[in-house]
Formats: sequence, structure tokens, C-alpha cells
Amino acid sequence: MDLRYDASVIIKHAIEAALPGPKVLQALRKYRPGNGRVYVISVGKAAYSMAAAAEQALGDKITGGIIITKYGHLKGRLAHFTAYEAGHPRPDANTYRATEAVLELVRKAGEEDHVILLMSGGASALFELPLINTADYEDLVEQILRCGADISEFNTVRKHLSAVKGGRFAYAAAPASVSVYALSDVLGDDLSVIGSGPAVPDPTSAADAVRVIEKYDLKVTDELWSALRSETPKTLSNVIHTEIIGNVQGLARSVKEACEALGYQTEILTDRLDAEAREAGRILGAIARSHASSGKSMAFIMAGETVVHVTGNGKGGRNQELALSAGEVIRGLDNTVVFSFGSDGTDGPRDAAGGISDGRTAERLEQKGMRIYDVLKNNDAYHALKLLDDLIITGPTGTNINDTAVALIRGSV
Amino acid sequence: MDLRYDASVIIKHAIEAALPGPKVLQALRKYRPGNGRVYVISVGKAAYSMAAAAEQALGDKITGGIIITKYGHLKGRLAHFTAYEAGHPRPDANTYRATEAVLELVRKAGEEDHVILLMSGGASALFELPLINTADYEDLVEQILRCGADISEFNTVRKHLSAVKGGRFAYAAAPASVSVYALSDVLGDDLSVIGSGPAVPDPTSAADAVRVIEKYDLKVTDELWSALRSETPKTLSNVIHTEIIGNVQGLARSVKEACEALGYQTEILTDRLDAEAREAGRILGAIARSHASSGKSMAFIMAGETVVHVTGNGKGGRNQELALSAGEVIRGLDNTVVFSFGSDGTDGPRDAAGGISDGRTAERLEQKGMRIYDVLKNNDAYHALKLLDDLIITGPTGTNINDTAVALIRGSV
Repeated sequence: MDLRYDASVIIKHAIEAALPGPKVLQALRKYRPGNGRVYVISVGKAAYSMAAAAEQALGDKITGGIIITKYGHLKGRLAHFTAYEAGHPRPDANTYRATEAVLELVRKAGEEDHVILLMSGGASALFELPLINTADYEDLVEQILRCGADISEFNTVRKHLSAVKGGRFAYAAAPASVSVYALSDVLGDDLSVIGSGPAVPDPTSAADAVRVIEKYDLKVTDELWSALRSETPKTLSNVIHTEIIGNVQGLARSVKEACEALGYQTEILTDRLDAEAREAGRILGAIARSHASSGKSMAFIMAGETVVHVTGNGKGGRNQELALSAGEVIRGLDNTVVFSFGSDGTDGPRDAAGGISDGRTAERLEQKGMRIYDVLKNNDAYHALKLLDDLIITGPTGTNINDTAVALIRGSV
Repeated sequence: MDLRYDASVIIKHAIEAALPGPKVLQALRKYRPGNGRVYVISVGKAAYSMAAAAEQALGDKITGGIIITKYGHLKGRLAHFTAYEAGHPRPDANTYRATEAVLELVRKAGEEDHVILLMSGGASALFELPLINTADYEDLVEQILRCGADISEFNTVRKHLSAVKGGRFAYAAAPASVSVYALSDVLGDDLSVIGSGPAVPDPTSAADAVRVIEKYDLKVTDELWSALRSETPKTLSNVIHTEIIGNVQGLARSVKEACEALGYQTEILTDRLDAEAREAGRILGAIARSHASSGKSMAFIMAGETVVHVTGNGKGGRNQELALSAGEVIRGLDNTVVFSFGSDGTDGPRDAAGGISDGRTAERLEQKGMRIYDVLKNNDAYHALKLLDDLIITGPTGTNINDTAVALIRGSV
């Protein structure tokens, strides 16, 4: 009967169901390698657990393996893998060094050999090696971020300057065959977007990339200019299998299962959430408020990934802002909570996976001299929720498939 | 089977069901006046149709009546009413003149007499007379709007400087009895907020108003200072009846009825919508997108009132922004529309009540060299939707109970 306890049960169940290990194990147990060597590359925030599952499934069949994950995300050593930790969301020298090592490994692979790529969220940043010197590359990235180009224009340019994105990883692995198992953190599961498509023919062309440079009149060196004009692969006949082993739809379904098991009449409103975090919180709060006096125990789920447009200098994250913002709208209700969490366990720069609000959150904060409106204006949800002991803290979970926000309403008994 | 045709049917039904005339007629036919005189005051955007219904119900029992409505909202002459048109959302000289006339009329009423107040959305602006000279009053309003005070602080000050708000209208009508019939455009129907509560004891005090002035260090004249300290009524024993004759819950239910009559499986997600318009559009679009391939004909309703934070200098309105923004999210779907409209028929400064988007809206706009993102950034949804012939135009409807946004999904046949 305790809403906060129910929330913790739901979060625990959803994260467990979203762990990629069992799915990698299941997928690779079906795998029948030929006589060639097997290389396993695991990149992303869930790289360690995916590699561990591959090792369990394939054991000594693995000739060589490399893990690239975010700092703090390695959970031990694996006999068949060399492991790297690197910067996220910004690549750093370790990223480039690790990616170079991957390329060296797969370039050795011959026609009989097989490369298995395990990808999870964060791979776009963690698996990267610019074709040009990094100073010029980073200068261009800064220019693009400032010029008003949209994300797809940014990605078009970035792919054409990368040694692994836009299909170039699979191209480098040829003639070996490649199979890909991806935990998707991209709404809609577009394979050319997940990890920036290292093993997918690039739908964008060098001419597209040049057009972006010209459109925004960006300053580029001769070296960069000539790298940009080299075409990304348009076909990749060596990629023999591509499989999404987990995505936000699955996450939403796991949350729904957990809610139903606890007796809530449950609805997945959307698994395509992509809006400003605090506004999503206001709307989920309004939906809860409109159903709070129905007498029924209900759960409303929104899964996807919100955004935060930073206006202040506090600490927070999109899930924390969503939950706190909902607190204003459900103010006064004694049978409702709204919570939101990132399945990877990290929401913003601190130790929180998300946050939870109830009908007393606004008032409790005001008793401490703070208002939700001001906290959000300063993007400081972390400190406000911490003060109320309303952060959701899980630690790195070993998975990464977007976020889920839930409104729970307890009906009359 | 045509989604746009269905949308027009739904809008027409919802507006007809929201017209206050029949409800006023029904309410006043039950009314049994004593021997005293009857005065009818009708204020707000729906004032004309409410007054017309009162005339139909009471006829020559009406000793005197006054209508105050927005420019362009009078639809003819009524025998028992003097009618005024005035500024909205900003009061002007006509507002003050009309409100003064109302006070003169009701001050004549004696103990046996009865005053009927008919209120609709817009009454806070249309029914107003400052206790101090208007130049000083308007200067203070400007200061408050700029100082960062919230809406409830603004209203606290405004009530204490008004001859009619915060219960002072009913106080002026004493010893006559007063009954109130209100068409609510306030989420939650708080009677002290609808029309700023002309016939409700004021929950705020003069001390609260003084505190706001001091908190923001506002500059006020001696005259204003002394007016501010005069207390608003805390009890009003002459107010004998108060009734909400229509509100957003009713509007949402009418929309639901119309959707169901057309064969859509329908859900009212919320009747408390209060979020940034474009983000509400993104979320309603995401909800539609997640259900578009279910094979079922479905309708999702959000009713309430969104807000727009203006960043550009185009023309638009909250309903138009909501609908256009959804167009980006439902891009490519061939069985979905999202539309949003204000029940009063005016959404922003032009002739539109709202707008509609479908899966081809984004593309059609791009063919004309425009992008939804840029249009919204410039708050120019009106021109974009006009270009696409996707504005919803009804003219002033004679009612005013917030907005409704609907996502319609056509299932497989």
C-alpha cells in the first residue's frame, strides 16, 4: 500500500528485465561459428555486461575481444577481453586509443573469421576515431554545435570524419563477416543512428556533408576538407546479421508488467517520449491529477528520453526535473506519486538515476524555503530532491535503454 | 473515414455542447424571484449569449441589465440590457465606464431586490474599476509584471485595488441578494479566481497585498498605499447561490462523446492540461505515434489551457503551436491527425480558433521552404498553418471554457 515502496519495486524489476546479459547469452548460444577466428567488440555503457555474457556463451572460441566503456563502468576483468574506459559524453584520448586498438584487431581478420559487435547506449561517444588530427576535429565540432545546425546535420559531418561511424567499422573488418547485437537507446531503433551506425551502410553522402559545411560557412582546414569528401560505405555485404536485443518498448513493457503485478491498472501512454523534461512532468502530473479521484489504482507510463534546455547553473538531470516538476501539479494529492528514472542509473552529472515526487513535495520544499519553480529555473533538481531524500539512486546498472516516467495512483481500498 | 472531416464534426459538436445559453436558461427557469426588482449583470466573452438566455428566461421580470463583453462579441441588441464592448486582455476606458455603470445600477438595489451575475472567461479583464486613478494603477501593474512576482501575488494586489474584484461587487450590491452563474475557464473552478471573484469572500488580506509591495520594493503613491490597505470582504451573507454552469470537464466530455459517436475508442488523458503548448503537442504526438499501428481507431484528449513563452515576433496562438508541433512527431503517419482549438474561437491575435496537423504537415511545409522548428522558434504558427490551409476557423463562438487538443488515429478497416 506504500506508493514509494511500489515505485522501488517497479524500478528494480524494470532494470533487471532490461539487463542485456541474458539476451546476449541467449542470442550467442544460437550462434554456430565456422572454422575461423571469432573477435568480439563490446562498446557502450553496458559493454562490460554484454562482453561478460559473450564470454559465457563463447568462452575459448573468442580469439580476441575489446571492451570500451565509460569511466567507472568496468566491473572486473574478463579473460578474453582487453578493456578500456574512456570519456562520455565527450570522447577523449582513451577513446581514440581504444578505438584504434579495435581497428587493429579487426583488420587482422580474414574471410573465414567472424566479428561480433555488441553495442549499447553511449557507443557514439565511446567508439570514435577521427580521420584527421583531433585538434582540427574538435574545433569543427565546436563550430557545428554553435552554428545552429540540427543533430542530423551534425551527424552527417561527424560520420564522414570518423574511422568507424557510418559503416566504416564493418568495412574495416571486411572480408570477415560481422554480426551486430545492439541494445538500442534510440527511439525508433534506427540502425544508422545507434552508435552512429558502425556496421550499417551510411544513408548520407560526402556531398551532404560538404553541403552542411557550406551552408553554415564553417572554417575547415585542407586536410579536413579532403577527409570529408571521402565516401562512407553504401553497401556492406559482410554484415550478415543485425539484431536489436533490447529497446525502450521492452523497457516500457517491463515497467507495465511490474505495475500490473502490484495491482495497478496500467497504460503505456507512449514509448516515444521526446519533449522538454519539466513539461513532460507537468503533463504526466496533470494526467495523474485528472485520474486521482477515480477510486481505481492506476499507473500511467511514458518511456523515451526527454531533454533539458539549461538556463541555470544548478545540478540536475532530465529525470529529476521531470519528477520535481510533476510535484507542483500533483500538490495536495495524498494518493499519487510521479517518478522518473534512467535505466542506466545515471541521470546528469551526479549519482542519481532520477527522482520521485508526491503530493507533499511542493509543500515540503517550501518549508525549507525553496519553490519548485525557482529550483527548475536554476536546473537544480538534484539538490532539491536530495534535501527531500527523494532522489532515486541505483548506481550504474549495466544497461542503457532510455528513461521511464511513471505516475502511480492508489485507488480506494 | 476522413480524419479531417471527423475533426470538424468533433469541434462543431463540442462548441455547441459548450454554449452557455441553454444552461443559463435551464438554471434561471428554476429561479423563483420574490417581489423585489431583478438586475442581471453579464460579463465576459460569452456575456451576450448568457444575457440573451436570461432575457428569454426572465423577460420583463428584469428591471435592469448590463452586458460587458470583448470588442466584436456583441451579436445584437437585447431589450432589457445596456451593452458595452471593452478591451481584452487589457482593460481600457470602456471597461471602467461599463463597470462604473454596473456599480451604479446595483447600488440602487434594496433588501427585497435580487442581482444575478452571469460570468464567463475574460471577466477579470472586462469587469474592472480601479479604486485609484488609472495612470497610477497601470504603472503599478507594469511594475508587478516585471518584478518577477507570480500570478497569485499579482492577483492579491489587483483585488485590493479593485472596486469589484475580491468580493467587492457583491458587497456593493448589498443588501440585495446575489446569485452567480459562471462558465468557468479556470482549471479547478476556484470561485475566487474565476473573474477574480467579484462575489466570493476574498481569501487574501490587505496585509498580504502590502507584503507583495514590500517584497518586490515597488514604488507606490500615497493614494495607492492607502487604497491597498482597505480590506476586501471576508464574508458575504447576501450571496445566496453560486453555480458553475460549464467547465473544462464538460468540454472534455463533449469531445469524448463526439469521438465515440464517430467510432473512436476514446480516452480523456487529462482535463488539467497546463504546460508549454509546443511540448504538449510533442507529447500528444508521441502518444499518437505509439498507438498508430495498433489497428484500432482511437482518440486521445487533453483539455485545459497551455501557455506560450514568446521568443519570436510571428503570429500564433497556443492551440496553433500545439497542433503544429505535433506535426513534427507524427511525421510520416498516414492514419493520424492532431488538432487543438480554443472553445471561444479565438486563439491568439488573429481569426483562428486553432490548428490541425497530419503526417504530411512537416513535409508539406518543407516543400514551401519552411521547417516546423523554425516556425515555432519565431512563434509564427499562424502563417505556417494558413499557408497549409490547416487553421481551424470558427469565429467567436459565444462560449469560453478553455481548450481541447485531440489526437485521432484511424484503425485498419
